[in-house]
Amino acid sequence: MAKAFSEFRPLDETSLIDYIKSVPSLCSRLHNNLNGLEIKEVGDGNLNFVFIVVGSSGSFVIKQALTYVRSIGEAWPMSKDRAYFEAAALKKHGHLCPGHVPEVYHFDHTMSLIAMRYLKAPHIILRKGLVAGIEYPLLADDMSDYMSKTLFYTSLIYNSTTEHKQGVAEFCGNVEMCRLTEQVVFSDPYKISEYNRWTSPYLDSDAAALREDEALKIEVAELKSLFCERAQALIHGDLHTSSVMVTQESTQVIDSEFAFYGPMGFDVGAFLGNLILAFFAQDGHADEENDREAYKGWILRTIENTWNLFQNKFIALWDQHKDGSGEAYLPAIYNSSEIQQLVQKKFMQDLFHDTLGFGAAKMIRRIVGVAHVEDFEAISDASKRAGCERRALQLAKLLLKERRKFQNIAQVVSAIKQGK
Amino acid sequence: MAKAFSEFRPLDETSLIDYIKSVPSLCSRLHNNLNGLEIKEVGDGNLNFVFIVVGSSGSFVIKQALTYVRSIGEAWPMSKDRAYFEAAALKKHGHLCPGHVPEVYHFDHTMSLIAMRYLKAPHIILRKGLVAGIEYPLLADDMSDYMSKTLFYTSLIYNSTTEHKQGVAEFCGNVEMCRLTEQVVFSDPYKISEYNRWTSPYLDSDAAALREDEALKIEVAELKSLFCERAQALIHGDLHTSSVMVTQESTQVIDSEFAFYGPMGFDVGAFLGNLILAFFAQDGHADEENDREAYKGWILRTIENTWNLFQNKFIALWDQHKDGSGEAYLPAIYNSSEIQQLVQKKFMQDLFHDTLGFGAAKMIRRIVGVAHVEDFEAISDASKRAGCERRALQLAKLLLKERRKFQNIAQVVSAIKQGK
Repeated sequence: MAKAFSEFRPLDETSLIDYIKSVPSLCSRLHNNLNGLEIKEVGDGNLNFVFIVVGSSGSFVIKQALTYVRSIGEAWPMSKDRAYFEAAALKKHGHLCPGHVPEVYHFDHTMSLIAMRYLKAPHIILRKGLVAGIEYPLLADDMSDYMSKTLFYTSLIYNSTTEHKQGVAEFCGNVEMCRLTEQVVFSDPYKISEYNRWTSPYLDSDAAALREDEALKIEVAELKSLFCERAQALIHGDLHTSSVMVTQESTQVIDSEFAFYGPMGFDVGAFLGNLILAFFAQDGHADEENDREAYKGWILRTIENTWNLFQNKFIALWDQHKDGSGEAYLPAIYNSSEIQQLVQKKFMQDLFHDTLGFGAAKMIRRIVGVAHVEDFEAISDASKRAGCERRALQLAKLLLKERRKFQNIAQVVSAIKQGK
Repeated sequence: MAKAFSEFRPLDETSLIDYIKSVPSLCSRLHNNLNGLEIKEVGDGNLNFVFIVVGSSGSFVIKQALTYVRSIGEAWPMSKDRAYFEAAALKKHGHLCPGHVPEVYHFDHTMSLIAMRYLKAPHIILRKGLVAGIEYPLLADDMSDYMSKTLFYTSLIYNSTTEHKQGVAEFCGNVEMCRLTEQVVFSDPYKISEYNRWTSPYLDSDAAALREDEALKIEVAELKSLFCERAQALIHGDLHTSSVMVTQESTQVIDSEFAFYGPMGFDVGAFLGNLILAFFAQDGHADEENDREAYKGWILRTIENTWNLFQNKFIALWDQHKDGSGEAYLPAIYNSSEIQQLVQKKFMQDLFHDTLGFGAAKMIRRIVGVAHVEDFEAISDASKRAGCERRALQLAKLLLKERRKFQNIAQVVSAIKQGK
């Protein structure tokens, strides 16, 4: 049976059962009871098959990487090695933050396949909850937990250079995913590209203006260089609101196939930028029953709390481990609480500005680039949708160009409110 | 015979002959005439044996990496894998700039040994020429050539992300050399360290002041992070004036065992910072016959010309290859000569400030750290030496803390003159 899967082949509901039978650890996860397995393919992403496997005595999810971008077809080939890096990042981040990362049960390099914990109902994709107007009281606390732990513990503040460069070298192999991000986030929105689309004709002139905005394009070049060159921590690499599954009691981060050693602000910015998109989409979801004003307030509080909690937790980890084996800030040099606070303040200020820049770039690409977000797509009235998108776009351009003028997240929230 | 060298062992003048006999390419380099070979060990560095091998029909240099820092002894172990990275960088940089990098004839990983072109007399170490007060009319032109080509052609301005990350991953292996730099450049000078030394008692309070200078230590932390995290180009990694051999007609860069993908400014800064050290040492070399004033003028012109030529050549390479396969600045985005010039100006301004910061850090560590420079060591009067060193140290602190206020190299030269 094992021989049948000695070469890569895409699985379907039928061959998946044969596959499971050939892997003892998966069988035992089902207590060897494979009768009446329910298998459902639910991949709504672009890059993978995702099978939910539920038996009478156990369950898991099987995610298999495909060799092309599913929504575009075989014209856009993708390395299936990304499954290796997704599994590696899930394991590493899961070790650092087990409460918010699903456990990996099994990884098969040949088949580009990961078996992991099935996040049962009522878990839904956070973005769908945001479109539906559902508040998640733990979200800011949980996501700040996830980001502070995964980023701090994979940085040089915590690790030796030797450990760090080992990780950097390994994840250099995930270069195809990095190149995809470079293209869709930092390049395509600022040039004519066959993949770009926007709410036309309403945003035609807005999209054209981006391509002519010299100040913006100069800042985008700097962010792109940071993304390509700065190995600051093992980042998730695609931390938008569809990479998070939630219930009222649980927050789980999935889909880390873009993981590599990059700038921390790319993760924090992705999450906050997508919350800002959710905010600007709310007017398009408002109706006579619900004007969404209260919900917009919750989103803004969540943005503010996420950053402030992240900052506090990151610094708390730093203080906790300041005499550890991290090599960036030796205690013999940063040897008083005064200078410790000064370097921490500078670090967080720089990270804050990176976060705003990357977050804004992620917003822009969701409005004029290849991949759009359900937040806006769910607004059926194109004119109304374009209005929401334009306000988000204006705010994103401001954040990207003027990010260094913002001192704290409260000022960003004020700017979002003014852009309403 | 080959079997004798199947494991690492340090060579001496006798065993080296057996080694040469066992390597056909070395024998043929000598036209198989090994009678009357002259062999001289000339390593004045800390880390290696260097044998000059001269026969009647050919010559070469054999450099063998040792497993400890020679000046400190076996207490400071060093990976001999650095010979691999030195050979790899010599080959890569030699390919990009053959006029200023000696040719590699042979590399032996097991023996941590490189055979390369012997740079015959009158080639001397540039630093010795600077101490002797010798002008090198080609120096600025040649070094700007070397730095612009090696840095541009190994950056993302010229290369695809795929090529870049392959290089980054490979040179992550040279981590022990990176850690040595981190320690001696960015850490030891700012803390109590058994390896630190300075011209005592004259500079005791200057050294103590460095350890208490909060503004300085905050800037040093930022530079250290850039050094550890920013994979901008394949840099030489140790480009001081003892890594350059010169005659009136030739400029050759050697000793690239610290090479890795790091910030470009670390190379440019190392070279300019060591020229600034040479400037401040001149008053200590002045005597009744030669007040060294004319020579100081030549050093300042060389500093100014090196940066300006480097900047012009780097931008010329960028213009020449702007429609190539480099992925940092796509021509479809940076699509007019106006925006092309704007991004180039911003890039060079950032690189200039990195250069000043790293250059200053390299100056400081040569005055209060473990490894000093002959420029100052050759001044036998300790009081006079300390005076020269203090003026260099003051200028370095200014450059490091205020580097972003300098707009161009002429302003730096003015500051050097004022520090005289």
